Amino acid sequence: MPRNFRFLICCTLAFLSLPASAAQPLSMPEVLAASTPADWRPLDPENTLYVELPRGRVVIELAPGFAPLHVANIKTLARARYFDALGIIRVQDNYVAQWGDPDNRHPLPSGIGKVAPEFDSPMPAAMHFTRLPDGDVYAPEVGFSDGLPAARSPSLHRTWLAHCYGMVGVGRDMDVQSGSGAELYVVIGHAPRHLDRNVALVGRVLQGVELLSSLPRGSDAMGFYSKTEAPTLVKSIRIAADVPEAQRSHLEVIRTDSAAFAALIESRRNRPEEFFKVPAGHIDLCNVPIPVRERRPAGARTP
Amino acid sequence: MPRNFRFLICCTLAFLSLPASAAQPLSMPEVLAASTPADWRPLDPENTLYVELPRGRVVIELAPGFAPLHVANIKTLARARYFDALGIIRVQDNYVAQWGDPDNRHPLPSGIGKVAPEFDSPMPAAMHFTRLPDGDVYAPEVGFSDGLPAARSPSLHRTWLAHCYGMVGVGRDMDVQSGSGAELYVVIGHAPRHLDRNVALVGRVLQGVELLSSLPRGSDAMGFYSKTEAPTLVKSIRIAADVPEAQRSHLEVIRTDSAAFAALIESRRNRPEEFFKVPAGHIDLCNVPIPVRERRPAGARTP
Repeated sequence: MPRNFRFLICCTLAFLSLPASAAQPLSMPEVLAASTPADWRPLDPENTLYVELPRGRVVIELAPGFAPLHVANIKTLARARYFDALGIIRVQDNYVAQWGDPDNRHPLPSGIGKVAPEFDSPMPAAMHFTRLPDGDVYAPEVGFSDGLPAARSPSLHRTWLAHCYGMVGVGRDMDVQSGSGAELYVVIGHAPRHLDRNVALVGRVLQGVELLSSLPRGSDAMGFYSKTEAPTLVKSIRIAADVPEAQRSHLEVIRTDSAAFAALIESRRNRPEEFFKVPAGHIDLCNVPIPVRERRPAGARTP
Repeated sequence: MPRNFRFLICCTLAFLSLPASAAQPLSMPEVLAASTPADWRPLDPENTLYVELPRGRVVIELAPGFAPLHVANIKTLARARYFDALGIIRVQDNYVAQWGDPDNRHPLPSGIGKVAPEFDSPMPAAMHFTRLPDGDVYAPEVGFSDGLPAARSPSLHRTWLAHCYGMVGVGRDMDVQSGSGAELYVVIGHAPRHLDRNVALVGRVLQGVELLSSLPRGSDAMGFYSKTEAPTLVKSIRIAADVPEAQRSHLEVIRTDSAAFAALIESRRNRPEEFFKVPAGHIDLCNVPIPVRERRPAGARTP
């Protein structure tokens, strides 16, 4: 090969590779700014809960794809106004905030019975799974399905939701069938992944988790409030579809099967922001944010 | 070999192995109840900080073995009463609570200058490392040194502290040498391990972290309080050695190089409690508790 031609190829290759190697990866705000409307999805009002607390509203997206029986129970309980005027009875630091009726003062509405555990479920071929590339301490594979952090085992052909910050689970007693959905908790600390496959997870807090995580901790064992500590009132729990349109929270959440979400994961695995001198190069399932934003109702005018 | 003799050996082996295989592994409370005084260590009053808040005391154990320059700065600042009457200016949900003097109203005492980053350090042969067996998403090896969650890279010959819940870090600007120790934060959410090797970690909260994690979140960007939100007063920060004996917190912490701690790790990798139907079989670094308990001062009588 003539020397000059070899030189030309080298230069061309160097030039072609420049844009990729020299381009700064995007930061998360840049990824979100570049996202298109198709990268976001609205919430299904039939599967959105509003937990009304004295200081504001906690918005929960339910996960009927993972726990259909428990979600059905929770919706029956909400429509029967079972949760109204109950209290947050347990706030354990670095663990959970929990509400329910441990003294059984509120009778359960009819139709609420024992259900199968739903701690995990078969791995359906049709379920999208955005797999993370960096492994996991607890499960063979982790990633996102239907907007939720999930794990799966191809050898067991099972999938399950993961106990990340803000996930909502069903309190139960020793019996695996004792969790009806009448007692719920939200993770407010480092992901207690040892609970995975031992409890039914039924959704995720999309907004207002700080109203739970900033509550005073209970002083009794496991963070239960003592008799002298006032539980926080749960004013009501409603299904969004049952709330007048004007009183709804209009949120949308990123699609976890979108190109924007894939770019977001990369923006967090290797943060390009100047502050980070040693990019992690990896990311833990529960450190991936799943952005939520206000949605302008269809037809609304720009103010 | 005669058949009967072979049968005898089989039976003996089966019998000998029974206690090990049939014995229920211990739970964490059982491990702690079976621990001996030698499994615990007192705190060094010279390396213990008391952060006095209106609602109580936060006790921090400093880590001079990992960040000697920053720890020296923090002790100089505390002894100069630099921190007194400052405020907690930032509480970001699922991230950090932070105090300092961002407007530079308090002049830094003399002797507080720029120090080397101390984001990681050489891996000393003499440093004990209780390594976890289950891997880690972020680092080649993780475990515990000197009572603290740590990571290390044998190929780089470096070790560093890990951003687990309750760890205390040094706020800084973009310049890696801008963190003097005058601004400190405590992790109050899922471990932000991407900060590892990008910030100097200087210790761990041993008691009172809930006084920080339950504070109202700030509404400005990154959880900073807005002008209309009142920061929580930091009444004072003192070194325990400077506090009269009667006013000290008498705590002791488990030795992370003890047999009791090794048993504790196992009790959490595979929880024997009846509640757990599917033991995790693994544990994430930041899910291992490092127990702390009240210590009876030497010579005190049993009540």
